[in-house]
Amino acid sequence: MIQPTKHVPLVTPGDGRGVVRGDPTAESRLDPLTGNWTIFSPQRTGRPDEFVDSDVRAESSLECPFCPGNEEATPDPVWCGRISTEDSSFEISQVGQEISNPDWSVRVVPNKFPAVDEIKPAPQKRVDANLFQRSGIGGGHEVIIESRQHVESLTDLDLAELNLVFRAYRDRLQYWRSTSGVSYLSVFKNVGGRAGASLSHSHSQLIATNRLPAQIKDSLDLMSRHRASTGCCLMCDLVRGELKSKQRIVWADNALVAFCPFASHIPMLVRVTTQEHQDCFENLDEGQLESVSRLVGRVVSWLEKLRPGTAYNYCLQTRPPAMKDTPESFHWWIDIFPRMTQVAGFEWSSQCMINPILPEDSASKLAACARAEDPRYL
Amino acid sequence: MIQPTKHVPLVTPGDGRGVVRGDPTAESRLDPLTGNWTIFSPQRTGRPDEFVDSDVRAESSLECPFCPGNEEATPDPVWCGRISTEDSSFEISQVGQEISNPDWSVRVVPNKFPAVDEIKPAPQKRVDANLFQRSGIGGGHEVIIESRQHVESLTDLDLAELNLVFRAYRDRLQYWRSTSGVSYLSVFKNVGGRAGASLSHSHSQLIATNRLPAQIKDSLDLMSRHRASTGCCLMCDLVRGELKSKQRIVWADNALVAFCPFASHIPMLVRVTTQEHQDCFENLDEGQLESVSRLVGRVVSWLEKLRPGTAYNYCLQTRPPAMKDTPESFHWWIDIFPRMTQVAGFEWSSQCMINPILPEDSASKLAACARAEDPRYL
Repeated sequence: MIQPTKHVPLVTPGDGRGVVRGDPTAESRLDPLTGNWTIFSPQRTGRPDEFVDSDVRAESSLECPFCPGNEEATPDPVWCGRISTEDSSFEISQVGQEISNPDWSVRVVPNKFPAVDEIKPAPQKRVDANLFQRSGIGGGHEVIIESRQHVESLTDLDLAELNLVFRAYRDRLQYWRSTSGVSYLSVFKNVGGRAGASLSHSHSQLIATNRLPAQIKDSLDLMSRHRASTGCCLMCDLVRGELKSKQRIVWADNALVAFCPFASHIPMLVRVTTQEHQDCFENLDEGQLESVSRLVGRVVSWLEKLRPGTAYNYCLQTRPPAMKDTPESFHWWIDIFPRMTQVAGFEWSSQCMINPILPEDSASKLAACARAEDPRYL
Repeated sequence: MIQPTKHVPLVTPGDGRGVVRGDPTAESRLDPLTGNWTIFSPQRTGRPDEFVDSDVRAESSLECPFCPGNEEATPDPVWCGRISTEDSSFEISQVGQEISNPDWSVRVVPNKFPAVDEIKPAPQKRVDANLFQRSGIGGGHEVIIESRQHVESLTDLDLAELNLVFRAYRDRLQYWRSTSGVSYLSVFKNVGGRAGASLSHSHSQLIATNRLPAQIKDSLDLMSRHRASTGCCLMCDLVRGELKSKQRIVWADNALVAFCPFASHIPMLVRVTTQEHQDCFENLDEGQLESVSRLVGRVVSWLEKLRPGTAYNYCLQTRPPAMKDTPESFHWWIDIFPRMTQVAGFEWSSQCMINPILPEDSASKLAACARAEDPRYL
């Protein structure tokens, strides 16, 4: 491969001698929910990539702990839902109720490998040396097992299962909100190894903690300040702005909206929320819950149509229990995003994300999928 | 796989009926450099994983644009270093000098797919609607090509190449620091697809921007506050604390230290810095530069000994040019970390990282590697 090299004079960037002049399409955008700027550099999508996207659905001889018959492999459930085979109605049993559940459709169990401890009455704080501060981390970590079938994506669920999964989110969020000491609630789903999943059987997770993450606190402050200065909810204003501009709308009816946010820090991220103000996801009524579950399923189907077999995550944000002073300034949402890029050195060190795809382009591709939709969702 | 399920009564977590009681080893620790808390949950390392670590070194038929003979595939260089075959001395040519470089050993070129535009005299800011704020993003984006050989890791370089790479960092950082309008400087390396690399030929990158990322600004504020209240540099105090506690030291001599930080947000992250106060990496003298390059190479070799073929990143933090008021409160460092886990839904939504490996355990394994070292580094 070694050949004689021509003699090249060294030049300053931009002196017009064949040097790339920077990306004139690059721009940065402010995310009003986090205060962070995202760098958009569409030119980077054209660069060569030697690393083939290696995400594969799991192949393993591991006995699946989430399949029926292996219930002993998980802790006892805290929530159980069954879809009636006669009329598709739901039978739900929750904490404190004794039930028989041989025919569970969706079940929630404590995570066998929890990220947090139980909440202790007085969390111990220790300062070892002047700068080494540590403390217990309490709360709960649960797994929502979404189907009796060993399926791998939300789009493999039928509509009744999908709806029941969102009912489980609602009920468990209500349970943890009413638990003393809980400051923050997170519901999320990891699908595929690239998205951080360790098991392939379709499931999502809930983490409740007694500590409000610093980034979430910053966001709550931004929302409260917006409310104080304008009298409006920041998310309501953002949704109104997106609906007015139309450029980043993927889908909307009179109640719900799915859009690619203006300053999206992740490629092809889709945000779903209600157009009407609502601080807590778990306060949605049953009709709304069904519509939201269906829309989230549809968004995943559109992403999978554009990127078959993609790894993806979604994250549900509901008003943190720690936010008590100005509950009216929070508005729930779900972010759904495929895992297309890796967090690399620049992003790790600066927390400033580089997104090679403009949300206008993502929205236009996804909206085309929405128009050519799988009829089972309609 | 479907078997009859026994009837299980539902229970509350922690009522003693076989439910996992949370992770009693879980704790959270405050990172004094960022203000973020990291959750440590060692119990999670025991969980089953169906997704085989699929990171592979690149296999591609792509003609490598970084190999000798393909210099036309990259923009003209801005820096070029040659190692003399006679006495291993360096010949370095920089911007503004006309040189012949058929025998380059390390070269720096503008990135053909830059993340940023050139710096414009007056960056245009636009507010489309009340909440949609955007602006140009200017600066430079360069690639440091680390060897004539098509090798893939820092540990494939010989010591002279390694030293020359760090000379290139120094020179290009000095260049960009003296460029008007630059606020932030980042040098980083992505090795392997999982670490965000798109080309396998050993290289690192430099990004200079006219915008200081929000997270970096927060860190600078924390450092300045620490200096104002104690009269000491925060990093100097952290290093002193780590040296005193000894628990997380991987390696140290009288001048340099490598340790796993107390509140490390990434598993097996190793931080390298000078024990003596130094705000800017690029002010290190040539002897120091050589020692640092060698130590970084050794740390990577220890990580690769523990995780052969691992993807990894490193990120160099030097005082941002935007930090002018209190330069004495900043202290340069390099973070080196293998890519063992994926950022999953909880971390994306909360920016609160869950680390399954305590830094004390990482440091003890790495220190053992240091003791059984490859003699070429000694």
